[in-house]
Amino acid sequence: MNKRYPVTDLIAELPASVPFVGPEAAERAMGRKFAARIGANESAFGPSPAAIAAMEKAASEIWMYADPENHDLRAAIAAHHGVAMENVVVGEGIDGLLGYTCRLFVEPGRHVVTTVGAYPTFNFHVAASGGALHFVPMNEDREDPQRLLDEAERRDAVLIFFSNPNNPMGTCWPADQVREFAQAVPENRVLVLDEAYIDFAPPGTELGIDPARPNVLRYRTFSKAYGMAGARVGYCIGEAGLIAQMEKVRNHFGMNRAAQEGALAALGDRDHLRDVYAKVASARDRLDAIAEGAGLSAVASATNFVAIDCGRDASFARQVVAALAEEGVFVRMPIAEPQARCIRVTAAPDALLDRFEEALRKVLARLR
Amino acid sequence: MNKRYPVTDLIAELPASVPFVGPEAAERAMGRKFAARIGANESAFGPSPAAIAAMEKAASEIWMYADPENHDLRAAIAAHHGVAMENVVVGEGIDGLLGYTCRLFVEPGRHVVTTVGAYPTFNFHVAASGGALHFVPMNEDREDPQRLLDEAERRDAVLIFFSNPNNPMGTCWPADQVREFAQAVPENRVLVLDEAYIDFAPPGTELGIDPARPNVLRYRTFSKAYGMAGARVGYCIGEAGLIAQMEKVRNHFGMNRAAQEGALAALGDRDHLRDVYAKVASARDRLDAIAEGAGLSAVASATNFVAIDCGRDASFARQVVAALAEEGVFVRMPIAEPQARCIRVTAAPDALLDRFEEALRKVLARLR
Repeated sequence: MNKRYPVTDLIAELPASVPFVGPEAAERAMGRKFAARIGANESAFGPSPAAIAAMEKAASEIWMYADPENHDLRAAIAAHHGVAMENVVVGEGIDGLLGYTCRLFVEPGRHVVTTVGAYPTFNFHVAASGGALHFVPMNEDREDPQRLLDEAERRDAVLIFFSNPNNPMGTCWPADQVREFAQAVPENRVLVLDEAYIDFAPPGTELGIDPARPNVLRYRTFSKAYGMAGARVGYCIGEAGLIAQMEKVRNHFGMNRAAQEGALAALGDRDHLRDVYAKVASARDRLDAIAEGAGLSAVASATNFVAIDCGRDASFARQVVAALAEEGVFVRMPIAEPQARCIRVTAAPDALLDRFEEALRKVLARLR
Repeated sequence: MNKRYPVTDLIAELPASVPFVGPEAAERAMGRKFAARIGANESAFGPSPAAIAAMEKAASEIWMYADPENHDLRAAIAAHHGVAMENVVVGEGIDGLLGYTCRLFVEPGRHVVTTVGAYPTFNFHVAASGGALHFVPMNEDREDPQRLLDEAERRDAVLIFFSNPNNPMGTCWPADQVREFAQAVPENRVLVLDEAYIDFAPPGTELGIDPARPNVLRYRTFSKAYGMAGARVGYCIGEAGLIAQMEKVRNHFGMNRAAQEGALAALGDRDHLRDVYAKVASARDRLDAIAEGAGLSAVASATNFVAIDCGRDASFARQVVAALAEEGVFVRMPIAEPQARCIRVTAAPDALLDRFEEALRKVLARLR
């Protein structure tokens, strides 16, 4: 290979890909800010006031590195979930933790199974570790455990990615079926269970998997229900020895000190969370109604976003997304067919949804 | 290999190592806080008030992800250094960027050269990428360009690590000699030039390497002079195509939004920096005097810390570090002989150095 830089062959062959383009890039291109930022499933309901206060206080203490063991935060997370501290690793968002996970299990010659249109950042990390990705389709807009298991068997895959609830469709499986799925994963494979949105799911979705099970890793985040996407705090729950492997690759001093303090405070404010759940549920209903009012249909959501079926193909949905952006409304859409018939809109305060409703009406009138 | 988990062979064989134990771990073990935290080269002079204000303001906006392109911060850094934005990548501290660097260039079968006792986190990342590390000794407490070049040739190393000024000794080379060194590195190797402490170095240390040079990467941080260690903001300057390779492996959404805002504000406050430089210079003088007063000698420092030669072996220095901890004073020491005859003390406000002076007197009286 004729290489300009002495990078590894793996890196030289990797295309320069970016999992997501941020709304700021679009804003720079447009030369103005979005009026309604409801495309990245951020929580415009905001973080707990206690978390804000903790981060403000930490600002003047930022001259100190954060505790590289994330001790206090891990202890609080462990207590919250009824597991041991050794079952928890904290990282720079689920994205960071998925990256570490791929470094543990993936290398050239290894195989990974996921779903067409599922979380692209996971795919990015698999590729960067040299793994071969294999895809199964969704089944009625849900990730399909049986197909994933079958494909993993066929490919002898080391990782199986599964998000519950699913992003970008908002669909989910009840806990019983996920538990069955997890139990069916053989010990030579690891189930990567992305639960970023599980806080919003109906009762009975939350999984009660024994943390002693050595091949299930569950990923949680402060970015969604806790309203702290910009803080970059995620965590992973799993069997202690498996979690300990992360120590071999993680950026020990990668966490922001104010983010640690903010997450700790956020975890303690259950009232704020209950308030957010209620507001998200109400915003989902509103989004359903907006969709219906526009002659579209919404996919039933177990998350803080709603996939709205635009009723045609991906090309049409893409036009809707672009036209909404021109109206100052940032939304995204699924990356793959047939889900890309939809646009994905984040639950948000009424003022932002008003703006979306108005823009959608205008845009559809123009495009139809 | 009999493995409990389906990790790669590389990971299975890696020892569970941690580059640094944080002071919080010692505090938890002691059951009390350090009175003087002067061991991690954090700046107790604190960040710019403008940076604190920016981070406080960002706390309530933390529900939004940070711009994954770090656009505004990169633009400001580029302008500050007189390079193009494409020559700059921002990451989760130099630690994070060193990790990404290793992923670009290192894999099993590849070789890396560094100095005995140089930055252990770099070694951690090389090992995690499967590289073979080769070490050359320091020469009179300085990293030795010629030895590094020779060993890189002998091992056919892809990366050469060099810090200027050096951590943990605080020594440095003038820019002319570093430039010669960089020019002598052949194109099939990359010079990893860690400049974390260069803001404190005498005029004439700052390097003027052409960013078009395709095999030099320079690492800078907001953790030291800018007083924002807990924010985790580092950056790397290099040739545009080389910097672009980082896009293939980095955690695009890894940066904390408040940290971005804080760093941007900090970069603009040159008055605060000048004030910090003066205070650090004065604290270094004070540390020299404290060492002399205790019958010890200080290594001349170009950084915000001073290596104090305890005059005996590593075992004695280790006793001094432990005894200082008992007195509530956190310092560290070099990890390798013969530099481990020293303790490493961070420049800090007088109240903290008073505490150190008193504790040192007490500790030495006991140990001698």
